[in-house]
Amino acid sequence: MTHLRDQALACRDAAPAIAALDTAAKQHLLNRMADALAADTHAVLEANARDMEAARHNGTSAAMLDRLRLDEGRVAGVVAAIRQVAALPDPVGLVTRREVRPNGISVERVRIPLGVIAMIYEARPNVTADAAALCLMAGNSAILRGGSDAMHSNLAIAAALRRALRDQGLPEAAITVVDDPSRETMVELLQLADIIDLAIPRGGEGLIRFVTEHARVPVIKHYKGVCHLYVDKDADEALAIDLLIDGKTSRPGVCNALETLLVHRDIAASFLPKAVAALHARNVEVRGDETARILAPEVGIATDEDYAAEFLDLVIAVRVVPDIDEAIIHIRRFGSDHTEVIATQDILAADRFVKALRSAVVMVNASSRFSDGGELGLGTEIGISTTRLHAYGPMGAESLTVERFVVRGEGQTRHPV
Amino acid sequence: MTHLRDQALACRDAAPAIAALDTAAKQHLLNRMADALAADTHAVLEANARDMEAARHNGTSAAMLDRLRLDEGRVAGVVAAIRQVAALPDPVGLVTRREVRPNGISVERVRIPLGVIAMIYEARPNVTADAAALCLMAGNSAILRGGSDAMHSNLAIAAALRRALRDQGLPEAAITVVDDPSRETMVELLQLADIIDLAIPRGGEGLIRFVTEHARVPVIKHYKGVCHLYVDKDADEALAIDLLIDGKTSRPGVCNALETLLVHRDIAASFLPKAVAALHARNVEVRGDETARILAPEVGIATDEDYAAEFLDLVIAVRVVPDIDEAIIHIRRFGSDHTEVIATQDILAADRFVKALRSAVVMVNASSRFSDGGELGLGTEIGISTTRLHAYGPMGAESLTVERFVVRGEGQTRHPV
Repeated sequence: MTHLRDQALACRDAAPAIAALDTAAKQHLLNRMADALAADTHAVLEANARDMEAARHNGTSAAMLDRLRLDEGRVAGVVAAIRQVAALPDPVGLVTRREVRPNGISVERVRIPLGVIAMIYEARPNVTADAAALCLMAGNSAILRGGSDAMHSNLAIAAALRRALRDQGLPEAAITVVDDPSRETMVELLQLADIIDLAIPRGGEGLIRFVTEHARVPVIKHYKGVCHLYVDKDADEALAIDLLIDGKTSRPGVCNALETLLVHRDIAASFLPKAVAALHARNVEVRGDETARILAPEVGIATDEDYAAEFLDLVIAVRVVPDIDEAIIHIRRFGSDHTEVIATQDILAADRFVKALRSAVVMVNASSRFSDGGELGLGTEIGISTTRLHAYGPMGAESLTVERFVVRGEGQTRHPV
Repeated sequence: MTHLRDQALACRDAAPAIAALDTAAKQHLLNRMADALAADTHAVLEANARDMEAARHNGTSAAMLDRLRLDEGRVAGVVAAIRQVAALPDPVGLVTRREVRPNGISVERVRIPLGVIAMIYEARPNVTADAAALCLMAGNSAILRGGSDAMHSNLAIAAALRRALRDQGLPEAAITVVDDPSRETMVELLQLADIIDLAIPRGGEGLIRFVTEHARVPVIKHYKGVCHLYVDKDADEALAIDLLIDGKTSRPGVCNALETLLVHRDIAASFLPKAVAALHARNVEVRGDETARILAPEVGIATDEDYAAEFLDLVIAVRVVPDIDEAIIHIRRFGSDHTEVIATQDILAADRFVKALRSAVVMVNASSRFSDGGELGLGTEIGISTTRLHAYGPMGAESLTVERFVVRGEGQTRHPV
């Protein structure tokens, strides 16, 4: 047996003990995990310093270094996030439907944990704690495969969390960090169909494609966000500018930031020059089609690559469309099914936009930046699913459970015996 | 481009037209599909006769021949089943939750179709019509890969259904039969991750393993049912015998039939001889452990293989267990997560059994034979999922949709602009 399979089996064997915890026990456990992590701040920062040094040595980009870096404030943020998860409603045991059938049997649908969840992620070490806390609150064990860049940080964080498990008399393997960062081991992990109930990859195109190609376990992808704002001919222009500026500039590096602006032809001459001016005032580079460049000559040239791009930066692609149908066709062609926004005062146009698009989140007159578990009322999120199965869009604790059937009778049989 | 990819792309391109149909249009479409199939009865039976002849020539077993065979009554049954699906509640557009957030944005979760569903199944040609009808009622297109044995029957059924699509001005590719039954083409189908939203394999261990190994599309397995009846020490013996006889003998060839009987030691001396007598009276072969064979000497020997077996026949494995915990351990070890039953008058034992097991359906004092979409109130089913994700247990029309987020605001932004 390989070391990974050993680790994964231990994680699976720990799952029933976690599934059996009641809400109060899980809350207590998570708060003790938060305490343990706070107590280990120094050790975590030391481990992180080793990761940072190696990353700098490897010529890692400044943006990646920033995602990898921890400091006292960031660790305190992770500790606070664990306590927030502890305060979430417990999805396990929730009876979502109940019906008494004509023959008298009672049929309930009740949420149970999924079992063993594998998280596959890249540099950010806070995911180790966030994902572990949310998986455990939903009654699951977690096997965590972070990037090799963050290995020391991830192991130090997990050591604190596992100590809390042990102190509560629970199997520490309920939180397991895959300590071999090789691609071969990731492939092996993805093929443990008898052990892992769900793998959640969070990351860029390369990681997602690799996971899809190699997985034999169920996968819910958290893929990129090529989010659109479509400004309809009946839009309130000031409102549309607000959505544009918030969507593009409030945090350009996240997946719910806007990447493309589509403008109805009839409003473009009025709206586009103002929009471009507002974007330029915020140092956003604007790349547009021919019509946009006629209306706002300072706009650069957009290619199909720009329309498909998740810039994650102060860049936006713009296109003028003849009608809402062309906007919908554009989004279907270039979008990533993440989040789309329409600005319009026309309720029929809004309905048409919502119905014709099948993205995970569709918004009318609200910022794409609300496409987030916390903002949409889930308390927190393990990420944003772009897989149209099980959970689509922001995933909270409930998404880490599944409904099953509990039937109670008094000896009913299907046929007379 | 291969022929299969061509077929699959046409099926995907047909999906928006189906997704856009309202409930009345879908009901009308399905009733016209039923009419068309009824009108084509003769052609379908002719095609089936060709399949039957080839199957006989290939030495197919009598049980398989029976599953393959159609006659006027069976076709009429399929026609009636399509009309039943047309009468089901439409899951698409259902608002499952609505919340207004403190900032005033309204957050709704609304069901949308999955998109393109691939059904992979074996001999039974009725699945072609059943699956197509249920997929379409939930707003999806269906790509159907049946067994090569039933190819003529499947194509003849699909021809009728597609004619109804055409007559309604809808793209007939919304129901597509994969006309190349080779394994290579099945592999190709399972890797169309850019086209297919969900693959549902229904079948035995070989088919399921093949699909799991080759799929790059999301898969929900419909795997075997090794269903257990545990007779607790506080069971009502007459009630337990009813559940046993109904579960084992009312239709032994289906996945919700009982395969194993577990009996608490304290009730075994009284219960087991009666149970074995009742089973023998129905021509059921009983294979048991040593204790069972002491209490009922006419019982044969059970091996671990028997405990893992889905007999689908008049055979049952029996084991005497020292307590409920051993019953739970046995089920966890040998079960297939399908359906488990406890017979007990002790409410604490019932709760313990329900909570400790994570099978899709757990029953207290009711027959395993109720583990069926129709019996549990779903109207009908596309099968019984043994994958603990998205849908677990009997899957109805709702399981062929997913919740997404629709947000409505009045220009709210996440940060002040």
